Amino acid sequence: MVSLFIGRFQPVHRGHLHTIKQILERDEILIIAIGSAQHSHTPDNPFTGGERVMFLKYALMEEGISMDRMYIIPVPDVGINPIWISHLRSLIPYFDRVVTHNPLVKTLFRDAEIEVFETELLERNTFSAKHVRDLMRWDGEWEPLVPPSVVKLIKEHKLDERVKAVGEARIKR
Amino acid sequence: MVSLFIGRFQPVHRGHLHTIKQILERDEILIIAIGSAQHSHTPDNPFTGGERVMFLKYALMEEGISMDRMYIIPVPDVGINPIWISHLRSLIPYFDRVVTHNPLVKTLFRDAEIEVFETELLERNTFSAKHVRDLMRWDGEWEPLVPPSVVKLIKEHKLDERVKAVGEARIKR
Amino acid sequence: MVSLFIGRFQPVHRGHLHTIKQILERDEILIIAIGSAQHSHTPDNPFTGGERVMFLKYALMEEGISMDRMYIIPVPDVGINPIWISHLRSLIPYFDRVVTHNPLVKTLFRDAEIEVFETELLERNTFSAKHVRDLMRWDGEWEPLVPPSVVKLIKEHKLDERVKAVGEARIKR
Amino acid sequence: MVSLFIGRFQPVHRGHLHTIKQILERDEILIIAIGSAQHSHTPDNPFTGGERVMFLKYALMEEGISMDRMYIIPVPDVGINPIWISHLRSLIPYFDRVVTHNPLVKTLFRDAEIEVFETELLERNTFSAKHVRDLMRWDGEWEPLVPPSVVKLIKEHKLDERVKAVGEARIKR
Amino acid sequence: MVSLFIGRFQPVHRGHLHTIKQILERDEILIIAIGSAQHSHTPDNPFTGGERVMFLKYALMEEGISMDRMYIIPVPDVGINPIWISHLRSLIPYFDRVVTHNPLVKTLFRDAEIEVFETELLERNTFSAKHVRDLMRWDGEWEPLVPPSVVKLIKEHKLDERVKAVGEARIKR
Amino acid sequence: MVSLFIGRFQPVHRGHLHTIKQILERDEILIIAIGSAQHSHTPDNPFTGGERVMFLKYALMEEGISMDRMYIIPVPDVGINPIWISHLRSLIPYFDRVVTHNPLVKTLFRDAEIEVFETELLERNTFSAKHVRDLMRWDGEWEPLVPPSVVKLIKEHKLDERVKAVGEARIKR
Repeated sequence: MVSLFIGRFQPVHRGHLHTIKQILERDEILIIAIGSAQHSHTPDNPFTGGERVMFLKYALMEEGISMDRMYIIPVPDVGINPIWISHLRSLIPYFDRVVTHNPLVKTLFRDAEIEVFETELLERNTFSAKHVRDLMRWDGEWEPLVPPSVVKLIKEHKLDERVKAVGEARIKR
Repeated sequence: MVSLFIGRFQPVHRGHLHTIKQILERDEILIIAIGSAQHSHTPDNPFTGGERVMFLKYALMEEGISMDRMYIIPVPDVGINPIWISHLRSLIPYFDRVVTHNPLVKTLFRDAEIEVFETELLERNTFSAKHVRDLMRWDGEWEPLVPPSVVKLIKEHKLDERVKAVGEARIKR
Repeated sequence: MVSLFIGRFQPVHRGHLHTIKQILERDEILIIAIGSAQHSHTPDNPFTGGERVMFLKYALMEEGISMDRMYIIPVPDVGINPIWISHLRSLIPYFDRVVTHNPLVKTLFRDAEIEVFETELLERNTFSAKHVRDLMRWDGEWEPLVPPSVVKLIKEHKLDERVKAVGEARIKR
Repeated sequence: MVSLFIGRFQPVHRGHLHTIKQILERDEILIIAIGSAQHSHTPDNPFTGGERVMFLKYALMEEGISMDRMYIIPVPDVGINPIWISHLRSLIPYFDRVVTHNPLVKTLFRDAEIEVFETELLERNTFSAKHVRDLMRWDGEWEPLVPPSVVKLIKEHKLDERVKAVGEARIKR
Repeated sequence: MVSLFIGRFQPVHRGHLHTIKQILERDEILIIAIGSAQHSHTPDNPFTGGERVMFLKYALMEEGISMDRMYIIPVPDVGINPIWISHLRSLIPYFDRVVTHNPLVKTLFRDAEIEVFETELLERNTFSAKHVRDLMRWDGEWEPLVPPSVVKLIKEHKLDERVKAVGEARIKR
Repeated sequence: MVSLFIGRFQPVHRGHLHTIKQILERDEILIIAIGSAQHSHTPDNPFTGGERVMFLKYALMEEGISMDRMYIIPVPDVGINPIWISHLRSLIPYFDRVVTHNPLVKTLFRDAEIEVFETELLERNTFSAKHVRDLMRWDGEWEPLVPPSVVKLIKEHKLDERVKAVGEARIKR
């Protein structure tokens, strides 16, 4: 079986790894689709699609998960729900079922008669990308929520400073 | 060093593998960007972006090349040259230099002050994706030009029949 | 005279029929343009353009209104006001004047020197599509506000469940 | 059963009516989707989407075909094959099967597991919209190929002069 | 040196002139890029790109500033930050540095290694285009904040009435 | 009177100046709209919109034509004829009539009831931008066809080398 897991990964956090490990216990192959891939430098999407590809690869390799069982694919938004599944399907390998916690995504896949399942979540309020971004913005301790290899990458390229700069942008606009 | 190799891979053929192996002798990490990723079912782009991701992964694993040294990223076209490099950069991981045999791509990267290099090509007229598609269309022997795992994938999903169907479409239009 | 009536019809309700009947008393032919036609599965636009075409045709035929006096045309948004009228005009038959209750639409047509008129409205707060959607979402009695043939269509295809599912989607996001 | 018939109708000719009558002998309801609806004023697409809606309605009513069995829907192109069927579906009412003579369209619908059938064609080389446009351009006798009500509409609004003007445009470019 | 000054100019006010004069004291040539140029008839963007070009030219000529030192270029939005600078660069002449008070714009140019500087601002809360639009909407005295030639242009073409009409549109929606 | 002159200016040549001078003898103010402004690095559109703005300004100032009588506005293509005039109008100042030698443009403006006039042309086959680009590509003497200040700009920034590079790109593709 091939599963598809969809997220924005702004940034990757430990909750994502928790979900990915659960999927890999059940299925052979995992496709990770990175949504809103064309966006970056906004308060909700500070990191580029390519940076998020790197976050995922570094985090998975750090966990000893083989890339041979994995596809990591950035998928730009189209902004039009009824064509979104076709758009997604055309950019990713063949898959059998979908993992998501988002009710809209669930509805769209069920309307397309594709099997959807959920996994158990780590504490949702703590392990959320929004929480991580807010901590970065207000000098909180975001590092424990994020895999160490991703922390290193973010700091090396000063991406946490970008999160602050674009966050301020919205407030002052 | 991280190299970027750009192609459309419609489909992957042995010439692509020849190039990829040369790059991996020089560089640690290779990013393969699949261009025109949103297109499929046309005479020049019969396969979807996702199918081409699979072609590459199957062909590389068959050669014993570790996915840990590799990123395979489908990149939709934007159709506007002066923004193409920014678009591409935003969807792929950080890279140091580019491998291409296309003079336009070379010009665009050089204007952006990014290093470009070429590799030695297998016989260009034989090992070309266009040649492979033409052979598929006219019942020629395309299989020897394509890695065995990709041949298997194409036949299993009857993708060669799609190449024929959409090829005819253009002729009759 | 040919009149143009523009709405989103998410979904058709009795207020729409009230307006349509007033127009047909004055004019021979009516063009109904369905705006935001490409959108669906969102809290404000749960139904597809095609579903809304069906709503209108069923409701009008139920009222004994002949389709021979009618055009029903879904029109995708362009999101850019100064080209919107040209875009609309290119997708619909020729018309003489416009019925609308929306001040922006009024301004755009008047700037283009096209005659605009208003009709008397049924109680605006009751007969509004937003009200109907809210009732659907919170298990209120939406059925009396909607023509019976449209109620039937919505229930047969469980479209009211979609309204609930995508409404929740927004709340949890 | 509801059938879907797709064409560009640049302009409607007697061959289209021949097809439509065959479909209406088999099926209750017919949806006519007008492709490339956003284009006009080009050599291949001289008429607007809205003009083509009018052509169809006039021609069908002239034949005594009731609009109650019919939907006529202009559908803008998206230019990306793998999302085209989803896009089309979102703009038109529900349908059971598709009539087309175009091999690409056939391939796309079959890949989506939708039934496709063909009808008998009037002499294809005579009754083709391209032939009609060429006759208009070179002052040939196009009128016998086109339903009388459509001829009248074209002449009344001098649309044949537009065909000439935009045809020349391409030649001189 | 060539400086680039970016704004939306909805409408031009005395604060803009204050900034422009400071730049022209330092640099030979000034490029003024008008952002969101494709939008008009919205509460935040009531004036078209072309109207804003006129505002700037009239205001500068009134101040006796020679057009020979100036480029005024409307630049449509792309809505995707990582390609915005390439898009902008492709539409405007070559430049050396950028003047902006917007933190996001600052971040994007600094990431692209382009020099950014700020100028002293006139009282920010008074001399803001939003303030001018609000005064127009609520019949306040907006005229003293705007250069006389621009006041004249707005009144002559009744553009202040458009500001009111589209402002109401949003409130009632 | 305000005239509008539309061209692509790839690059500016002496024929363009000949037209501009004729217009300025009749009219007070001239708006020059640069079409296909978003494109560059293609065989037909080698120069960016911004470079073409510079070409025009340098050439006009060299002729002693005051910028105070002039607007030079890059206008991106939309690719859809029926909305093109609205799109153009929204990006440029108000105008009274249009100068063009292109039959399609003439047809579109006449359908919009805008006055169109023609000017006398310099020898059309010699003074054509396509001819200039071809001479650049094949090392012919293109310089006498182009205003000296534009020749200087092209050589200083090696833009003639770009014309060669992207021209080859097409041939080999």
